[in-house]
Amino acid sequence: MARSIDLAVIPGDGIGPEVVAQGLKVLAAALPSDVKLETTTYDLGAKRWHATGETLPDADLERLRGHDAILLGAIGDPGVPSGVLERGLLLKLRFAFDHYVNLRPSVLLPNTTTPLAGNPAIDFLVVREGTEGPYVGNGGSMRTGTPAEVATEVSINTAYGVERVVRDAFERAAARPAKKLTLVHKNNVLVHAGHLWKNTVDRVAQEYPQVATDYLHVDAATIFFVTQPERFDVIVTDNLFGDILTDLAAAITGGIGLAASGNINPTGAFPSMFEPVHGSAPDIAGTGKADPTATVLSVALLLRHLGHEEQAARIEAAVTADLAERDGTPRDTDTIGDALAVRVAGSVTG
Amino acid sequence: MARSIDLAVIPGDGIGPEVVAQGLKVLAAALPSDVKLETTTYDLGAKRWHATGETLPDADLERLRGHDAILLGAIGDPGVPSGVLERGLLLKLRFAFDHYVNLRPSVLLPNTTTPLAGNPAIDFLVVREGTEGPYVGNGGSMRTGTPAEVATEVSINTAYGVERVVRDAFERAAARPAKKLTLVHKNNVLVHAGHLWKNTVDRVAQEYPQVATDYLHVDAATIFFVTQPERFDVIVTDNLFGDILTDLAAAITGGIGLAASGNINPTGAFPSMFEPVHGSAPDIAGTGKADPTATVLSVALLLRHLGHEEQAARIEAAVTADLAERDGTPRDTDTIGDALAVRVAGSVTG
Ligand SMILES: CC(C)[C@H](C(=O)O)[C@@H](O)C(=O)O
Ligand SMILES: CC(C)[C@H](C(=O)O)[C@@H](O)C(=O)O
Repeated sequence: MARSIDLAVIPGDGIGPEVVAQGLKVLAAALPSDVKLETTTYDLGAKRWHATGETLPDADLERLRGHDAILLGAIGDPGVPSGVLERGLLLKLRFAFDHYVNLRPSVLLPNTTTPLAGNPAIDFLVVREGTEGPYVGNGGSMRTGTPAEVATEVSINTAYGVERVVRDAFERAAARPAKKLTLVHKNNVLVHAGHLWKNTVDRVAQEYPQVATDYLHVDAATIFFVTQPERFDVIVTDNLFGDILTDLAAAITGGIGLAASGNINPTGAFPSMFEPVHGSAPDIAGTGKADPTATVLSVALLLRHLGHEEQAARIEAAVTADLAERDGTPRDTDTIGDALAVRVAGSVTG
Repeated sequence: MARSIDLAVIPGDGIGPEVVAQGLKVLAAALPSDVKLETTTYDLGAKRWHATGETLPDADLERLRGHDAILLGAIGDPGVPSGVLERGLLLKLRFAFDHYVNLRPSVLLPNTTTPLAGNPAIDFLVVREGTEGPYVGNGGSMRTGTPAEVATEVSINTAYGVERVVRDAFERAAARPAKKLTLVHKNNVLVHAGHLWKNTVDRVAQEYPQVATDYLHVDAATIFFVTQPERFDVIVTDNLFGDILTDLAAAITGGIGLAASGNINPTGAFPSMFEPVHGSAPDIAGTGKADPTATVLSVALLLRHLGHEEQAARIEAAVTADLAERDGTPRDTDTIGDALAVRVAGSVTG
């Protein structure tokens, strides 16, 4: 457990800075007084790109590398062409810092609105691969813009990359009460990548006899997300399927305003990065309507990653209590952040 | 409007033959007496593969090519390795017969169970590309089974292939009351394929000023499927995203037992193929529990494709009435088929 945290903060665009401010507030309230927190803010995102044309210069990447962890708000505005900041900043960070575990918990918390009828019990964890698959940026187009154009996207999957994330998922499954791991892929169509994933899970499973394993095609998995979400415990899946499934998971557990994520390099060789799943929501930026809860829960993941399990659990308990006790009165971003910080501070013992 | 239908039937495995029998029953009831129906049954699927090792021999493919259309039940059983029949039979047919429009209507019919709370109005049509994208089977693996394995899957997208399905989708959107077309892709990550799709939609849109267009990333689309399904009218999307989205669409509109599909070659150069979205469900085969409604609705798509619009509409009306009047008493496969055939026959005038 680190006695100091050297945190890089990328507030980003739109509601990013607003929710990050609340995340930092709660982080400060959660930390024991003898843990020193130092933050460095990085001006990266749409504003920077509009001003300078830069997305993530080498110098920034080098400086970021030196921190213990990164807290990111949200990136992008409608004035930036699609893909520029995603590939040039967000994915560049995930790939450069080898964030091979993209961790996304899905829990239906009290008093949250799910579009699902009934009151399903939802508590699962998606371990999304973060450095391979269709996200590698390998592809291109020829005769672009002509009637003879051909555009390709290559999904690259390695035994090295698949096995390390599968092992991570088994470890997490083994540590949970339900001890169940579901692989989601599409191995009846994407047979090469699919067989690599399936064979890896089957092989590693032998080392975890206490973990039950299951396999679902990605299309079938979306059905079970809405009809039988309680069937899931830990899910391990590729980068693209994980992207799709975790947005659906967020939708059924109270919406994207509550969904936290960690882009984790478990080896510690690079700083891990924590961010809400939602985007920069330019339509509500500046209105105080942004819910900072997803960012606050991402701060909990950050603390857990840095070894502050107790503080992480306190933040999560504060969020649960805050949701359970809310009475429907709309609260602005700051008010929610304050309420969470007060709860967390009140539960900190030293 | 053809005065005779030369139909190939591939009942397949599991519940396939059971639901196809009902589909044929309703088809016979729907056809005007002066339209001659001839059917030829093909023994293809898991049974054939177990017996002979064959999936789709050239001779069968050649004979199938001569028919006006194909009705397929479901393919597969747990004894066949994943991918063998999908790639060797189902996808082989879709690719060989250039089924570039994979048509999947999603309508929340009366009295059906949706997992969504409230009573959302759902009536949209997914036009899934059927011959390109990640489904092309272009990829492979090297050092297979070793710790140094690399497995790839290549998504191939052509202006030719994208434009023809986009045009088809615009035509369908222009013919519907809401006149709205949503492109679903992931153009912020899969930038090459994504830009081809986006540019094609933007360009063709100029020829359809009466159709409103929208764009959603696939992850965001899954959110709107469960929170705001009424926002969709016609969706056009790539092969893989269409696969995932249409299972989710089926789940929110009463389940996979009601979801119909057509694999269409709009040029008529090859026979189009109609099939329920569900699989062979070996667990309920032989129990009479299979709902033939998805197959019956696929027969309606088949009739519409062959120019029998009135008969198609009659079948759809019969299904709607049947669902509206059901009282919860469980009915077996045959009983549902009989009820639908009677309704359709009763409404046929000549
Ligand atoms: C913004 C985009 C590149 C990103 C992704 O696709 O991973 C986002 O959707 C996410 O899930 O974090
Ligand atoms: C069985 C499989 C190959 C198929 C597909 O992926 O297209 C199925 O899921 C479908 O949607 O028709």
